[in-house]
Amino acid sequence: MRARDIAEDYPTVRMDDDALATAHLLAERRLAAIVVVDDRGMPVAVLPASQVLNFIIPNYVQRDPGLARVYDEKGAGELSAELRGRLVRDVLPREELRHVEVVNGAATPMEVAAVMARMHSPVVAVVEEQRMLGVVTVGSLLDHILPTA
Amino acid sequence: MRARDIAEDYPTVRMDDDALATAHLLAERRLAAIVVVDDRGMPVAVLPASQVLNFIIPNYVQRDPGLARVYDEKGAGELSAELRGRLVRDVLPREELRHVEVVNGAATPMEVAAVMARMHSPVVAVVEEQRMLGVVTVGSLLDHILPTA
Repeated sequence: MRARDIAEDYPTVRMDDDALATAHLLAERRLAAIVVVDDRGMPVAVLPASQVLNFIIPNYVQRDPGLARVYDEKGAGELSAELRGRLVRDVLPREELRHVEVVNGAATPMEVAAVMARMHSPVVAVVEEQRMLGVVTVGSLLDHILPTA
Repeated sequence: MRARDIAEDYPTVRMDDDALATAHLLAERRLAAIVVVDDRGMPVAVLPASQVLNFIIPNYVQRDPGLARVYDEKGAGELSAELRGRLVRDVLPREELRHVEVVNGAATPMEVAAVMARMHSPVVAVVEEQRMLGVVTVGSLLDHILPTA
């Protein structure tokens, strides 16, 4: 069994996709993260949903729970509106902090597991012949390598 | 709307629960993490599924992809067998590295969002009157605070 055999479809977005539409995709599919791909469809970053929150909530509010408390729902909606007209590239962390774990389709489950364990990553992209086959999630990987109960 | 209104049921385990059964729960439900509660049912830690991998894969294998490659499926199964007879408390990171984000049931969505954004956490436990009501996931929270597309 190789990574290509256990790779699953996973939603992706591009750098120039709309940030608000991307946030809605994360919300509707209840995703903790989404994979960002370049124009050739190769993975270039993972955008965690918590990073979208990080983008729309000012730092001084993040640091002061009391301040967060005074934002009512209307205030929250206004902050989220900050996403309007923005692109995925605007919401990503700055370039040196972006990363995505990638393995080749021929990787063994243990290689995938080693990457996940070392990087504390719940998802790894699987690529082969210059295209992304899908991802392996940590839940799926455990399902494949655990001994039966 | 308050945190208690958007808290959702979420699987929990206790410190003395079986580690292998917990890993199977993570695998079967495709969870990226599980909440660990104390004897009163109050959240004390989040156990990411990647931490389970971190526990079963020796550090020297994590650091050397070439070494990971030589583990065949039987080898992987043997490593996972390390979980047999272990408890959740054995698998958790050491005490000073454990953490769980907790908000009160009366917290506003913006307070929950501020905690998630600051801590880069995809899940926050909601507690009230000494019990855990459930969790708010980042996907669900975005669903509540985003303006319509």
